Amino acid sequence: MNKLQTLILAAITALTAAAAPLTLTSPDGHLSLTAGEDHGVPYYTLSRDGNVVLAPSRLGFTLSDLDLASGMKVTKSTRTGHDDTWTTLWGEDETIRNHYNELAVTYRGKRGVNMTVTFRLFDDGLGFRYSIPAQKALPDIVVTDEMTEFVLPADVPAWSIPTNRTIYYENLFTCDKLSAKDTVHTPLTIEAAPDLKLAIHQAALVDYADLNLTPRAGKDGAVRLLATLTPWQDGTKVKAGASLLSPWRTVIVAHNAGELITSRLMLNLNEPCTWDDTSWIEPGRYIGIWWSIHKKKYTWEQGPKHGATTANMKRYIDFAARHGFSGVLAEGWNYGWGEGETISFTKPYPDYDIEELSRYARSKGVFIVGHTETWGKSRLLEEQMEDAFAMYERLGIKVVKTGYVGAMLNGEELQHSQFGARHYRKVLECAARHHIMIDNHEPMMPTGLQRTLPNLMTQEGVRGQEYNAWSEDGGNPPSHTATLPFTRGLAGPMDFTPAIFNYRDEVVPGTRPQSTIAKQLAEFVVLYSPLQMAADAIESYENHPALSFIESCPTTWRRTVVPNGEVGQYVTIAREARDGSGSWFIGSLTNEQARTLAVLLTFLEPDARYIATIYEDGPGADYITNPMSMAIRQVEVGYGDTLTLNLARSGGAAIRLVKCN
Amino acid sequence: MNKLQTLILAAITALTAAAAPLTLTSPDGHLSLTAGEDHGVPYYTLSRDGNVVLAPSRLGFTLSDLDLASGMKVTKSTRTGHDDTWTTLWGEDETIRNHYNELAVTYRGKRGVNMTVTFRLFDDGLGFRYSIPAQKALPDIVVTDEMTEFVLPADVPAWSIPTNRTIYYENLFTCDKLSAKDTVHTPLTIEAAPDLKLAIHQAALVDYADLNLTPRAGKDGAVRLLATLTPWQDGTKVKAGASLLSPWRTVIVAHNAGELITSRLMLNLNEPCTWDDTSWIEPGRYIGIWWSIHKKKYTWEQGPKHGATTANMKRYIDFAARHGFSGVLAEGWNYGWGEGETISFTKPYPDYDIEELSRYARSKGVFIVGHTETWGKSRLLEEQMEDAFAMYERLGIKVVKTGYVGAMLNGEELQHSQFGARHYRKVLECAARHHIMIDNHEPMMPTGLQRTLPNLMTQEGVRGQEYNAWSEDGGNPPSHTATLPFTRGLAGPMDFTPAIFNYRDEVVPGTRPQSTIAKQLAEFVVLYSPLQMAADAIESYENHPALSFIESCPTTWRRTVVPNGEVGQYVTIAREARDGSGSWFIGSLTNEQARTLAVLLTFLEPDARYIATIYEDGPGADYITNPMSMAIRQVEVGYGDTLTLNLARSGGAAIRLVKCN
Repeated sequence: MNKLQTLILAAITALTAAAAPLTLTSPDGHLSLTAGEDHGVPYYTLSRDGNVVLAPSRLGFTLSDLDLASGMKVTKSTRTGHDDTWTTLWGEDETIRNHYNELAVTYRGKRGVNMTVTFRLFDDGLGFRYSIPAQKALPDIVVTDEMTEFVLPADVPAWSIPTNRTIYYENLFTCDKLSAKDTVHTPLTIEAAPDLKLAIHQAALVDYADLNLTPRAGKDGAVRLLATLTPWQDGTKVKAGASLLSPWRTVIVAHNAGELITSRLMLNLNEPCTWDDTSWIEPGRYIGIWWSIHKKKYTWEQGPKHGATTANMKRYIDFAARHGFSGVLAEGWNYGWGEGETISFTKPYPDYDIEELSRYARSKGVFIVGHTETWGKSRLLEEQMEDAFAMYERLGIKVVKTGYVGAMLNGEELQHSQFGARHYRKVLECAARHHIMIDNHEPMMPTGLQRTLPNLMTQEGVRGQEYNAWSEDGGNPPSHTATLPFTRGLAGPMDFTPAIFNYRDEVVPGTRPQSTIAKQLAEFVVLYSPLQMAADAIESYENHPALSFIESCPTTWRRTVVPNGEVGQYVTIAREARDGSGSWFIGSLTNEQARTLAVLLTFLEPDARYIATIYEDGPGADYITNPMSMAIRQVEVGYGDTLTLNLARSGGAAIRLVKCN
Repeated sequence: MNKLQTLILAAITALTAAAAPLTLTSPDGHLSLTAGEDHGVPYYTLSRDGNVVLAPSRLGFTLSDLDLASGMKVTKSTRTGHDDTWTTLWGEDETIRNHYNELAVTYRGKRGVNMTVTFRLFDDGLGFRYSIPAQKALPDIVVTDEMTEFVLPADVPAWSIPTNRTIYYENLFTCDKLSAKDTVHTPLTIEAAPDLKLAIHQAALVDYADLNLTPRAGKDGAVRLLATLTPWQDGTKVKAGASLLSPWRTVIVAHNAGELITSRLMLNLNEPCTWDDTSWIEPGRYIGIWWSIHKKKYTWEQGPKHGATTANMKRYIDFAARHGFSGVLAEGWNYGWGEGETISFTKPYPDYDIEELSRYARSKGVFIVGHTETWGKSRLLEEQMEDAFAMYERLGIKVVKTGYVGAMLNGEELQHSQFGARHYRKVLECAARHHIMIDNHEPMMPTGLQRTLPNLMTQEGVRGQEYNAWSEDGGNPPSHTATLPFTRGLAGPMDFTPAIFNYRDEVVPGTRPQSTIAKQLAEFVVLYSPLQMAADAIESYENHPALSFIESCPTTWRRTVVPNGEVGQYVTIAREARDGSGSWFIGSLTNEQARTLAVLLTFLEPDARYIATIYEDGPGADYITNPMSMAIRQVEVGYGDTLTLNLARSGGAAIRLVKCN
């Protein structure tokens, strides 16, 4: 029998001994899962090479009129397997292997209601989801609580942002013991053991509430992480209707922090795109009238310092055309920024000639990035978006940056609630009809939906560059971008907007990027976004030597590897260009500690030679005393060579490797 | 009486006591000159603050049928003065003060023939010229020898290239005692004393032979430098016709080497331009299909590796448009490169669509730099140039690079003879009628004619970058570009073609630029040319961080200062942009010795602050072992601050100072 036949055979074997725990192993045999019920309570466990990763952890729901978390009996289980490789439209890897063994366990609970939990065990972790089919005994499913648990056998440190002290996920990730935390957002990155890193998150949140985790100290030093869904204002969590299909709950299981970054488990658990035409979706770099507003040089609203003017925008378009940026953003182009103004997504301010600018941009081979700041009034966007997106399509506006600044959507529902999920998806679908890509600010935490809806290019949901303009705490600390790739970054692309070159003209004394300039470049590689913004004003880029790296750096990749990294300390990410050139780009950065990193070049083609152009911290570079010192060297390298990088305090290196002719 | 009245009074005072030597002092009183005759031999002397600069030095001519170097009597002398400030169309300084005292001495010689020597004494040196008016006793003037001498009171070291072992002036300048030299070209740069640097050259060579100097040990340790004009093949030197007006013989008198560079004596001694319209003359940067030919990647002539193809040229035009280069050169575009081909300056090779390329270039806002390699057949160019330049004008070709590779013009006359001077001027005049600027390769040594004919933009006549591609001696040595500004550079713009970034793919093993890459950048500032070529292939510039300096660097200046320099050792040149921005650009470079230079910023505006972006030798930079290491830092500076530059062996620094907003 070949492998496929074996898998098929496994799939048609139904277990009947429901009382004994069901087991599942990963394709490579290292991970194993058990599932079943204990005194009627559904549960699962996860182990690696015989060691407990997750102790018995509860499953199930409390529905508005039914308890599906106790009194449950396994009635059926199905095993299957899957192994194929699919191609991404854009992203960190061109092809992704989707290789897992699956166990679907069906429980029967009170009133004879059926609920199935489907487990997929990959070599790099676990995903599981709930489905409740339409059934007469349960005509309308309203989730009041999801009872899912992730039980860590010990109270270990983890990286997280809190749910209840933040909106928009714009906090600094902190590392504490699990038991010391309040409810946290996912991804939750857990330092379970020196060779065991976990990341708990979710995949394919299509029509559901966002997942949060509440730690509770359990028995024997264990810590239970309780699923805590973001509620509707009526207190319910998910209004599912006749049937329910939850997002996948995911656990990446890695030997080191770098493996968290290269796991594609979340994407594998999203559905493929079914669109006929995706040719209009194009990753790229963009610039915009943005940082200068945060720096108080311009204003969003009308007035003597208005930023989004026709003349100013033409300067930006010219710069973009000259320097290979595909898009130019203008914030504050439309009515809705001044007091008393009616928000309109089609009516430009009088000093912003959108027709002329669109013509001009097109003539230069670039496009305008549209912007729809709703101030949280998602209803307004839903009302206007059909007309607005049709207008943008006509004008060649290929990307829209959406925004939802405001505590609640329409003052009524939380942004991370099922209400929010529905809104964000509606916008994506309407945008797709008009061939518009979306950069979603103040979003739902991403869950890999870009596989299904590949016009969901990038999202905020991260404490980004703008904090380096005006935050009262000096800006993002040096550890921040050494943490994000292992935490927020695991959820998908981040519109962090890296690459500030000009640290002068502080608007809050002492607040500026807390990094060397070489680290700003490294972030352009390290912080992944298919639409990557070079955030600074064009005046700061003009004639700047470091711009040459940004101009050359792709935003979609053939392959990504992580030669080294420790959460919050340092990381090196290497990515191969997807253009067939064989070029590689490496970003390496450190927190407030200077360090020397050795990057072993075993990812290069064995028989090729490469010229490495290395942008690194220069003589005396230091993020506090001398952030602008950058050194550049070129060395010829090949497979198996080691690049030694000396990173300053909060320093970095950005490297371009081009094949020798 | 005001100053002007004093000068006028002096001018109308004619001396009658001819036997006593005539004297003249510079406006500041430091330089003084005597002139007269000694036993019938005309002579002059020059001193500074009472110390002899030039001991009694002979004047006069041997004509084909008359000796005007002995038996001469002073019959008249006239003193006058001049002080005004004029504006250059382009160059190293926007305004130039022309301030001198003048003494015109008329001699009567055999047959009653009159000859006048006009001396102009500036604060920075001396110029003198001969005029022989039309007179019955001398119906046809043919110079067989110019008897001018420059007598140095001691046998001091000087920098020169030899006349008789070179063509095209493409030798390395060497420093020897004057007495050890054979006949040399001018400029001749003399280390007369620690605080006395001299440069002997000429100005306004309009219709004359080139000047060379032959050293002869004289009495009391003095060295006589004898004017030695480049001859016609019949042995005569100058065929003057009814009257003669020689070029100015010039001696810059400086306290230090830097003052040689900032002397504008040569330009002051050329005639102003009288053209009505000079709006078509535009300094700028250019690139071209050139270095890759010298590197054997392409060929000039037709064949599988032909460089000047339509497709290749479009790539270059695109690059130029993106990166702010105004011109693109293609060598090998026309018939005349292959064996047996008839040279044509209007007929492109079949794979070079000149009409399409001109249209394309124009659409991108750049122009093609034409190229007319004559292989020394100047007659061919004279025959074709009216048609060719008319065609170029129609095609928007604004610059023509002319070339004269070949030992003699038409196999008949030397390029540096009066015959050559006449040809080069004819080309300039014809080009001007068609609004074409000239970049003259294999030229006459320049003498400041660009003041009169400002379409004479730049010239070769220098051992340039191409020697770093294929010379058998490893390329230009580290001292070369530390020598040129004080020697060849004193004669005017050099089309040296700096800025090679890619040292790989050697065609002669070991031959490559013998400098760090930061020094390559420094040369872009240090070696002045109003049409400055960035010489490397665009593949080497694409995405290179150092390109940002070149993109930003002007080629015409408001002001030039030389903070430090020693001939052959090191030099720092600072130039203020002419665009009114107040930006300064500094180039600093050293020979094979590493050194630390302090640049005192007393040339900046006193009340302004500047951001200095410094491209300098990086960690471990060394021209032999590690030429590609470059560091970049930014510092804020103001008037009176000191920049400390650590230059590697054959290293450099390039600095851009931009005013803070």
